Formats: sequence, structure tokens, C-alpha cells
Amino acid sequence: MESPINHQITLAARPAGLPKPSDWKPVESAAREPEAGFVLVKVLYLSLDPAMRGWMSDARSYIAPVRLGDTMRAGGVGIVLASADPSLVRGDYVSGWLDVQEYATVKATSLVRVDPHAAPLPAYLNVLGGPGMTAYFGLLDVARPKAGETVVISGAAGAVGMTAGQIAKILGCRVVGIAGGPEKCRLITAELGFDAAIDYKSEKLGPALREHCPDGINVYFDNVGGETLDAALARLALHARVVICGAISQYNATTAIKGPANYLSLLVNRASMQGMLVFDYKDRYADAVPFLLAWMAEGKLQSREHIVSGGVAAFPEALLMLFKGANVGKLVLHVADA
Amino acid sequence: MESPINHQITLAARPAGLPKPSDWKPVESAAREPEAGFVLVKVLYLSLDPAMRGWMSDARSYIAPVRLGDTMRAGGVGIVLASADPSLVRGDYVSGWLDVQEYATVKATSLVRVDPHAAPLPAYLNVLGGPGMTAYFGLLDVARPKAGETVVISGAAGAVGMTAGQIAKILGCRVVGIAGGPEKCRLITAELGFDAAIDYKSEKLGPALREHCPDGINVYFDNVGGETLDAALARLALHARVVICGAISQYNATTAIKGPANYLSLLVNRASMQGMLVFDYKDRYADAVPFLLAWMAEGKLQSREHIVSGGVAAFPEALLMLFKGANVGKLVLHVADA
Repeated sequence: MESPINHQITLAARPAGLPKPSDWKPVESAAREPEAGFVLVKVLYLSLDPAMRGWMSDARSYIAPVRLGDTMRAGGVGIVLASADPSLVRGDYVSGWLDVQEYATVKATSLVRVDPHAAPLPAYLNVLGGPGMTAYFGLLDVARPKAGETVVISGAAGAVGMTAGQIAKILGCRVVGIAGGPEKCRLITAELGFDAAIDYKSEKLGPALREHCPDGINVYFDNVGGETLDAALARLALHARVVICGAISQYNATTAIKGPANYLSLLVNRASMQGMLVFDYKDRYADAVPFLLAWMAEGKLQSREHIVSGGVAAFPEALLMLFKGANVGKLVLHVADA
Repeated sequence: MESPINHQITLAARPAGLPKPSDWKPVESAAREPEAGFVLVKVLYLSLDPAMRGWMSDARSYIAPVRLGDTMRAGGVGIVLASADPSLVRGDYVSGWLDVQEYATVKATSLVRVDPHAAPLPAYLNVLGGPGMTAYFGLLDVARPKAGETVVISGAAGAVGMTAGQIAKILGCRVVGIAGGPEKCRLITAELGFDAAIDYKSEKLGPALREHCPDGINVYFDNVGGETLDAALARLALHARVVICGAISQYNATTAIKGPANYLSLLVNRASMQGMLVFDYKDRYADAVPFLLAWMAEGKLQSREHIVSGGVAAFPEALLMLFKGANVGKLVLHVADA
């Protein structure tokens, strides 16, 4: 097989604030043939994540930053074109770190085989991928909501929030989602079964949370930080649990991060606030999958993706949708068909 | 017995910022004879606590505010002068809510009998009282430090901090205290066995924490909030636990509370921040006392009080010492001798 041309998007500069077109540089080269233990994967879909903004920065974090000149890190699903490892064969569908490129030559052991018949491929980047695992373990392992408790979720129409809300409903909780705009609010209540939605673009969070959480918030699942976190802290119930899963409102901040001024509500309510990172649960992903698949099969859990076309060239612009709140559900870039 | 004259300090106004003399009003009346179930107690020592600032405010909190015109709430130890309840007799020493006055007529069941031979009376307001219980349960129940871990304590020369640091040493931890001024820093290291002290008045917290906690902070026990909390968050180790026990730097704030801008360190380090309130452990105080007494007897745990004389009239001025950091150890007001 002749090596196909691989178009890649590399990181050209570390952004200040929102990433700009000049922070990226498209490059191309021949796709690399796999040496022993490696496979060559044709990238089909890439996951676009708020966390990517952090990976572009050189601040100390849970994962090394993407180096300048390197292909941008991204999770994705693809199909194996050539294998030099016995664990995978040509035609297998896989998910893993494929990065923003058309062809990935990666270690076979870094990939997980996925079944395109059990669920559509993009679902492996959503409910059956990182966002789904984040929601599942963030709720079941960290927040541990009990039936009847009130669970509030910010970024509720985003990939993690959507799944977290649906799982909380499955667990018997009252679920209130915070999202931006009537379309997202309608979706989470009318289609995904949330009990209530608060549109932060048109409603004042304080009074809205008071109205929808008359007995306070038992679990707050935070994806956005900033003023939303502060408003939720002000409404905590006794022994509430706050899961810090993300802070999309702060990722592009060029001024100092806004700390939650109402954090002393943790003391008053003997509440806890805990950070979680999905990678810590890597060894347990496989435990979650049967539950998630069963809930999907029963129609209790929907995997909604917002799929952008245009291939890797569309990546820089598509990424910005996350920070503008332009996506409804998991943002996925379509790179190629199998 | 003729009723003695009872001098009381009542709350005259809700303060803005630091309490002023005009926020208090001294009153006097005849001490009230105890009706059935009550006892008349002569107040000997009163506990002066940072939390008092909160009780003076009418913001929603874990306990009702002191009403305007009421005697200021305070814990204390005293001696029973007259009893109308079979559980206590004249001459018994007791601790409980006696309030800022010379004679308290209170329900017998609200008091705990204390043994003046087991420990000096002021210790029942310190290591064997609220601050000691806060330190004991805050560490053993919330933070759960393991031997060898690094524990950082702010307000380390205050009542809670001092005991927390000594207990952490007993548990085999490396203990770093943050305190204001060379006298306090010398005390906690030279006399109380802390491994290191950081003088926040003369050292930069960030570099000092980096120096003394090269592997990060496993447990941060926070009594002060503000910039100190932020500096500690920036140095958390993986899976660190932050106990929010108080925020003395913020209690008199007239501007918005400063939230911890570095709270996303909780996410990066999968750490938790939990509020604790000692009253929740009321039913377990008795479990802690034998341990605390034994450690005191072995010389591993010292109860240091800063005793102010002058009786209840000295209360308004003495309380301010807490917010100026003028006390070393537990601040106690001497009201009378038995």
C-alpha cells in the first residue's frame, strides 16, 4: 500500500484568551507505516473538548501540554488500515488518542476496539467515551446522589452535562439543568427528561435556583465555574456535594480566574467540593459500558452529538464553538468515512 | 441566698467590619433564680472565638444570629451556685453556653460536668473544648492524614491550629504551620513540635510553601481563608484534602468575600475541599476526651491559653485581639474566681 498524505493540525503558538487562527499551523506529510507494535489508523471522527484549551497552555496540569509544533492532541475513532501488532487487524474500529490528523500511527495497546454495531461511532466519543465516563463516575463515584435528591448540572446541554442529567434521572433524582438559550433548555427538558431548565442567558441564576430548588441543592455537578458555581454554592443544602468537573467559563480568561466567593457555604452546610478527572477511572471504563449500553437500549439514555463536517481543516474554527456555547450535545468533527 | 448582680454584655447593633464599642451595651440585673430543671452558674472563664463575628451578623448560617438586645452568646466554664435539677449540685464545675455575663441561669441538661483535677479549667475551653474537638474531628474524621503525609495548618498559633498541628504530629505527619510573627512561629516549632513555620507577615507564602512542602500538600487545614487558602491550593498534592474550618481573614470583610481563585487545583489534583462544623460531632465529643487527656498526660499535646483579665467589661476589646492576631493560643476571658 502506498502511504496516503496525512494532513495534520499542529500547535503553532500558545494562545492568550480564545485560540486564534494563527495559533495553528496545518502541515502535511506521508502517513507513517506502522513499525512492530503499532497500527496505522484512518481517522473518522475526532472529539472536540473544552479540556483542549488547557492542553494548549503550558500551565502545570494533570497532563503534559501539547508541545509547540506537535500535532494537536485529540481523542477519536477510526479504522485500522494496517497493523503490525497481533491485537488488531485491518478493518477493526478503534478509539483512542488519534490527534488532529487524517492518519494516526499509534501503539496498538493505546487503543480500544469499539463495536460499530452496538452504537454509532460518534457515541464512542460521547456517552460511551470520555464525556459519558466523566458523567458516570462523577455522579456514581464522587457525588453519589440518592433517589429524591436535587441534582443541579451546569453546561447541561453539553456532552458531560447531558449524560450526567440523564443518569441522575435514572437514579431517581430531581434534575435541574443550567444551559444557555431556549433551544438547549427545551432539549434537556422536553427530550432528555430533565425536570427543569434554567436559561442563564435570560434568567437570574439566584432566583431561578431558589425557585427550582426550594429545599436546596444536594448535588451540584459543575462544568462551567465562574458565577454559575457561585450561585449554586449559595443554594447548597446540608451535606451537599459539589463535583468540579470543568470550568469552561474560565478556560480562556486572560485576567485572574474568578474564585467562588461563596465557598464558605461549604462550611455553613458541611458540604464538600471535589475535583474529578475521568482518566483516573480508566481501569473501570469497561465496568460502566454495559450499564450505559443497557440504558441506551432501554431508551433512558440518549447520546446526542453535534457533528461538524469539513475534516481536520475545520478544526480551529469548530473548536471555538465550545467556548461560544454554539454546540448542543457532544461536539464531534467528522474527518472521513470508513 | 440573695441574688447577686449580674453584669451582661448585650448586642446593641450589627457591626459593619470590625465590631465597634457602640455595637455592645453593658446591662445589669439581678441574677435569675433557677426554676425546675435549671441551675444558676457563676461564670469563671469565657471562650472568645472567631465564630462570634458570624453570630453577630444576620446572614443565614449554621446557627441563629444573636438577636439585638440579647446577651452575647459565648461558651464558658463556671461553678454551680444553685441547682433545681437532680443532675447537678452546688459546687459542680460545668461547661456550656453561659454567654457574656457573670451569672448564667441555664438548663442543667445543656451543661457538661468537667473535672478541675483532670485539667485546668481553661483547658475545657481549649483542647478539651470546642477548638480541640474541631481539630480532632477535622483531622481524624474529615482530612484523615496518613503517617508521612505533609499537613499544612493556617492560623497555626490559634486555638484550633495549635491542637490540629500537635495531633497531626502524633499521627506521624510532617506539619507546617502558618502564623503571623516570629513569636508565634517560634512557639509552634520550638515548643509545640511543628516541623516548620511560615511567618506570613514576613515571608511570601508561595515560595515558602514550595520550600517546606517539596512534594506538595496532602492535607491543608484552613482557619483563615483569603490569600492563604489560595497559596495552599496552588501547592496541593494529588488527592489532597482541604478542610475548611474557618476563614478569619474574611469575617470582617466589608467588601465581597475573596473566593479561592486557585480552586481548579481541586480538579487538576483530584482533591477535595470540605467544610466542617464541630457541633455536628457533639455526640462524639466524649469519645475524643480520653485520647486528648492521655496525649496531654504524655506531654504530647499542650493546651495553651491566652488569658485576658478584666471580667465581662473587657469582652468587647478582648474580642478584637482575635482579628488582629494578637492572641497566642486560645483566647480566654477570665471573669471570676470560684
